[in-house]
Amino acid sequence: MCHYCMIVSKQLPASIIYEDRYTVAFLVIKPISPGHVVVIPKTHVKSLKDLSDVDGGHLFSTVKKVDKALQASDLDCEGVSVYLADGEAAGQRISHLHLHLIPRVKGDKLAVCLDFDSVPFRGVIDLKEDAQKVRDGFKRIQSTE
Amino acid sequence: MCHYCMIVSKQLPASIIYEDRYTVAFLVIKPISPGHVVVIPKTHVKSLKDLSDVDGGHLFSTVKKVDKALQASDLDCEGVSVYLADGEAAGQRISHLHLHLIPRVKGDKLAVCLDFDSVPFRGVIDLKEDAQKVRDGFKRIQSTE
Repeated sequence: MCHYCMIVSKQLPASIIYEDRYTVAFLVIKPISPGHVVVIPKTHVKSLKDLSDVDGGHLFSTVKKVDKALQASDLDCEGVSVYLADGEAAGQRISHLHLHLIPRVKGDKLAVCLDFDSVPFRGVIDLKEDAQKVRDGFKRIQSTE
Repeated sequence: MCHYCMIVSKQLPASIIYEDRYTVAFLVIKPISPGHVVVIPKTHVKSLKDLSDVDGGHLFSTVKKVDKALQASDLDCEGVSVYLADGEAAGQRISHLHLHLIPRVKGDKLAVCLDFDSVPFRGVIDLKEDAQKVRDGFKRIQSTE
């Protein structure tokens, strides 16, 4: 079973910040910036071409929700870079389709250099704090909807 | 009216490679790699938060189609990088939401340095040829569906 499927089935722990019937969103342990989230479909597919339109719709809907929550959170987030690597040639390392959401601030020069491999791991306590901030963001957007 | 809305309304020319009721996809004139496509919703929205779930579903569905067409085309394309900059802080330069699809080949080191500003313009004839290749890709995926 792939690592992301094990997060879906709760066999592997993760800082999950959103979950519904079709999708899960959690913090990555090597964030490009604090609050860096990965959104995945619960169904295991490797490539965009294998994703159904229904799952694709749910996936993009979750991306929108997480994007909004990040911007409503107390994380440093003035904008969000959304990135999907479809295929190894595009830099896909995990064989379960996933979209990155990377909090951005003006002048950070982060996403002009999306070098995922060179990023250091983030501590467990930092991840917990980041996750709480995103969850607070969700509460804020829910209370205004 | 924004540049992308003018492409939608055909007041500005573009190498359109796909169009339906909700979305348009066309080649960018400063491609990161040949066949670099931008997919937009026809409705003018700046941010993800302003995009309806219906428009989002159609948009992502078109992303999937174009991704498949690129990989079925004669362009050098072993994978695709999909990128969306939500907000100026994330590098958004045009105030009409758009997703980049960038053809990738192994070892190209392109998307690890998505520096859109430094990319040179591509010639009109090259763009025409690239567009034809993507359209051929569409024909191929249609004939297998």
